[in-house]
Amino acid sequence: MTTPTNIPDGSVTSPRGFNAGAAAAGLKSGGQLDVALLISETPCSGAGVFTQNRVRAAPVLYDQALLAERPGRLRGVAMNAKYANACTGQAGADAAAKMAEVAETAAQVPARSVFVLSTGVIGMQLPMERVEEGFVRAAACMSTAGGIDAARAIMTTDKRPKHVAVSVETKAGPVTIGGIAKGAGMIHPNMATLLGVLTTDAVVDHAHLDALLRKATDRTFNAITVDGDTSTNDTVLMLANAATEIAITRDPEGWKRFEEAVEHVARELALMVVRDGEGATRFVEIVVEGANTEAVARSVGRAVASSALVKTALAGGDPNWGRVLAATGASGVPVHPERLRLSAKIGGESPDAWLVLAENGATANAPDEEAQRVFAAPEIVLRLELGMGGAAGTVWTCDLSTEYVRINADYRS
Amino acid sequence: MTTPTNIPDGSVTSPRGFNAGAAAAGLKSGGQLDVALLISETPCSGAGVFTQNRVRAAPVLYDQALLAERPGRLRGVAMNAKYANACTGQAGADAAAKMAEVAETAAQVPARSVFVLSTGVIGMQLPMERVEEGFVRAAACMSTAGGIDAARAIMTTDKRPKHVAVSVETKAGPVTIGGIAKGAGMIHPNMATLLGVLTTDAVVDHAHLDALLRKATDRTFNAITVDGDTSTNDTVLMLANAATEIAITRDPEGWKRFEEAVEHVARELALMVVRDGEGATRFVEIVVEGANTEAVARSVGRAVASSALVKTALAGGDPNWGRVLAATGASGVPVHPERLRLSAKIGGESPDAWLVLAENGATANAPDEEAQRVFAAPEIVLRLELGMGGAAGTVWTCDLSTEYVRINADYRS
Repeated sequence: MTTPTNIPDGSVTSPRGFNAGAAAAGLKSGGQLDVALLISETPCSGAGVFTQNRVRAAPVLYDQALLAERPGRLRGVAMNAKYANACTGQAGADAAAKMAEVAETAAQVPARSVFVLSTGVIGMQLPMERVEEGFVRAAACMSTAGGIDAARAIMTTDKRPKHVAVSVETKAGPVTIGGIAKGAGMIHPNMATLLGVLTTDAVVDHAHLDALLRKATDRTFNAITVDGDTSTNDTVLMLANAATEIAITRDPEGWKRFEEAVEHVARELALMVVRDGEGATRFVEIVVEGANTEAVARSVGRAVASSALVKTALAGGDPNWGRVLAATGASGVPVHPERLRLSAKIGGESPDAWLVLAENGATANAPDEEAQRVFAAPEIVLRLELGMGGAAGTVWTCDLSTEYVRINADYRS
Repeated sequence: MTTPTNIPDGSVTSPRGFNAGAAAAGLKSGGQLDVALLISETPCSGAGVFTQNRVRAAPVLYDQALLAERPGRLRGVAMNAKYANACTGQAGADAAAKMAEVAETAAQVPARSVFVLSTGVIGMQLPMERVEEGFVRAAACMSTAGGIDAARAIMTTDKRPKHVAVSVETKAGPVTIGGIAKGAGMIHPNMATLLGVLTTDAVVDHAHLDALLRKATDRTFNAITVDGDTSTNDTVLMLANAATEIAITRDPEGWKRFEEAVEHVARELALMVVRDGEGATRFVEIVVEGANTEAVARSVGRAVASSALVKTALAGGDPNWGRVLAATGASGVPVHPERLRLSAKIGGESPDAWLVLAENGATANAPDEEAQRVFAAPEIVLRLELGMGGAAGTVWTCDLSTEYVRINADYRS
C-alpha cells in the first residue's frame, strides 16, 4: 500500500468545494463551539454506515431515510454536541427534522439535502431555540478553513479535535479526501458514539461510495474499541461532490489508490480516537494471525481488546498475558487452545524484538523483566497466532484506567 | 418458594459426613490459608458445571474426565489459591493429577476419587513441593467445622469467605445442603474465576444431581457479572453423599423443596460474590420482564449488567438511564425500542416506589432529584420491560469503580 500524501491541517474542507463553519450555541458551557455546518457548493453522492444498536437515535433514523431517498442529491451535514437526541420519542424525531431544515435554510441549500449528527447525553430534548440560532451563525462563518472548527464543535469528552486529509495522484490530476471524527469513550466494534464525516472532490457514484465506505469502516472504525459499549448514535458519513470532475472509478489503478487513501484517512481518524480514549495511558495494537478469515481475526482481536481484565492489566503495565489467552478462549471463536502463540513488542520496534510469551497455549517462560519492559511502554503491539488459517486482522485499543471510570462516573454533569 | 431454614455459620461441612481442613502452604504470603481439602466419609454422586471458555485450565480438564469416569464414586475436592494452573501445558496437566493423588493419599481415600480446583494467576506452574506438603497438613486437621476455613483458603481478591448452609424438611426427616464459593472479579455469565462447591447428605443420583445443578447455576452463578470476563477455571461442583439415607428424588414434594433449597444456596453464594465484587460500591439487581423466554430475559439483563458505561454511571451514582437503553439495544436480542420501559427503585423499597425513567423507549421525564435519590443508594433495583412476551429473568451486578481498576492493574504482585 502506498501512503497517500498528507495535507497539513487537513480536514473535511480540504477537498475542493466544501465549506464549514461552527458556532457556540450555548449547549456546552463556557462559550465552546457546539454546533457545526459542513456544506458542499454542489450536490454530492453520499454513503453512510450506522450503529448496529437496536436503539437508534433520531438523527440516525433521519439520515438513513434521507440517504435512501436522495443518495445523489446531498449537500452537507449539520452537527451538534452535548445532546444525543436519543430516546427522545416523537419530539426527538421532530427535532432532528427541524435541525436539518434550519441548517438547509441558513445555508441556502434545497430542502432534504442535509444530514444531521448529534452526540452527547441520551434522553434529553434538544433546546431547539439555541440550536436554530446556532446554525444561523455557523452558516454565516462558513469557509474552506472551517473543517477544524467543525471537528472541535463535535467534541464531547475528546481532549483534541480529530481531522486529517490526504491527496492522491490520478491520471487526470490530484483528488483529495478529508475527514473529521469525534469519539473518546463508548467506542466499540460497531462504532459506539463515534461520529465521522469523510469528504472527497472526486466523482464517485453512490453505489461505489457505499461499498468503499463499508469496507474501510470495517477495517478502521469498526476495529477499535475503548470500552466495549455500542452507542445509539454511531454514524460515519461520506460525501463526494465531484468538484474535480475526475471520475476516479473509471481508472482501475487510480481507484485502488483512492480506496487505500480512504482507508488511510479512516484509520488515521480511528487511531486518533483510540489514542484519545477516555483516561487512556497506553495504546495497544493487536494483530491476530492464522485465522480462517479476516473477519474472524478481527472478532478475536476485539474480544481481547474488550476484556476488562486485559485492559486493567495494561493500565498497570502488568504483563499478565494469561488474560489475553483467557479472552481469546472466551471470544466465541472455536480456537484450539493448544495452538495459541502470543508475542509482544513495543510499538515501533523491529520484528526482531518480538518476545514470545506463550507457545502451544502454555507459558513460554519469557524472562519477567523483559515482559515488564514491553508492558511498561506507552505503545504495545500484541501478536496472537491462532494456527487455524492464513487470514489476519488488526484491532486497536487502549487501557482501562481509573481515569476512565472517573470520567464516566459523572458524565452528565 | 418457601425459604429453607438457614444454618448459622453453615458451609460444605454442615451436611452429615463431610469433613474439611485447610493449611497455609506458602502459596499466599504471610501464612494465610491457601490449600484445602473436603472429604466425604462415604462415596458420593457428583455433578459439575464448568467454564465455557475454550481455554480451560488443567484442573477443569481433570475434573471433567474424572466426572465422566466415576460419577458415583467420588470422595471430595482438593483446592488451592494463588495459582490457576491454566496455560501451563503438559506440566500443568501432570500437576493437577499429582495434586489429586497427593490429596487422596493424605485423606486415605481411593485413587481417582477427588476433584481438584485451582484459582489464581494464569501461566505459572504450581510449586508442587509446597502443595504436597500443604495437603498432608490440611488432611491432618480435617473436621466437621472445617468448611469455613476451606472457604477462606480459596479466597484470592475476595474480601471475605463465602459459605452458607440450609436444612430442608422432608417426610423422612431433614436433609442439609451446604456450599462455599470464591470469586470477586472476572465474574461473568459463564462463571469467570468462580469456584463453588455444594454438598448434601441426601441420596441423589448423578443424573438428578446434574440436571439440578445446571438449572440452579443458570439462575444464580450464571446470572451474575462483575466485569464481563469469562475465566479459564470456573467450576461449580456438587457432591451428594447419601449420609441421611433419605432418597429425596422419590418424594415429589420434598424434591421440589430440595431443588429450591439448592437454588437458594447457590443464589446466596452468587450474591455474596457480587457484593464482594472487586472495588464494588453499589449492588444492582436487574429484573427483565416481558421477554419471550427466561433465557432471553437474562441475556438482555447480562448485556446491561456488563456495560462499562452503565457500571461507571452506577459508580458515580449518576441516573444516566439512557445507557441502560443503549446497552439493551446492543444486547443482540431483537428488542423493539419503542416498547421499552425502564423503572428503578432502591433495594428493599415497596413496589409503590418504582420510578419510571423511560416509557415507549423515550424519556418519561422523571424528576431528576428523585432519580438522583435512587441512584445514590447502595442497593438499586432496575426493572426493564421489553413488551415482547411473558417471561422474566433476574441478574445481579455491581458498579465499576476506580478501585476495581486499581485491584486489577497489578493483580500478579
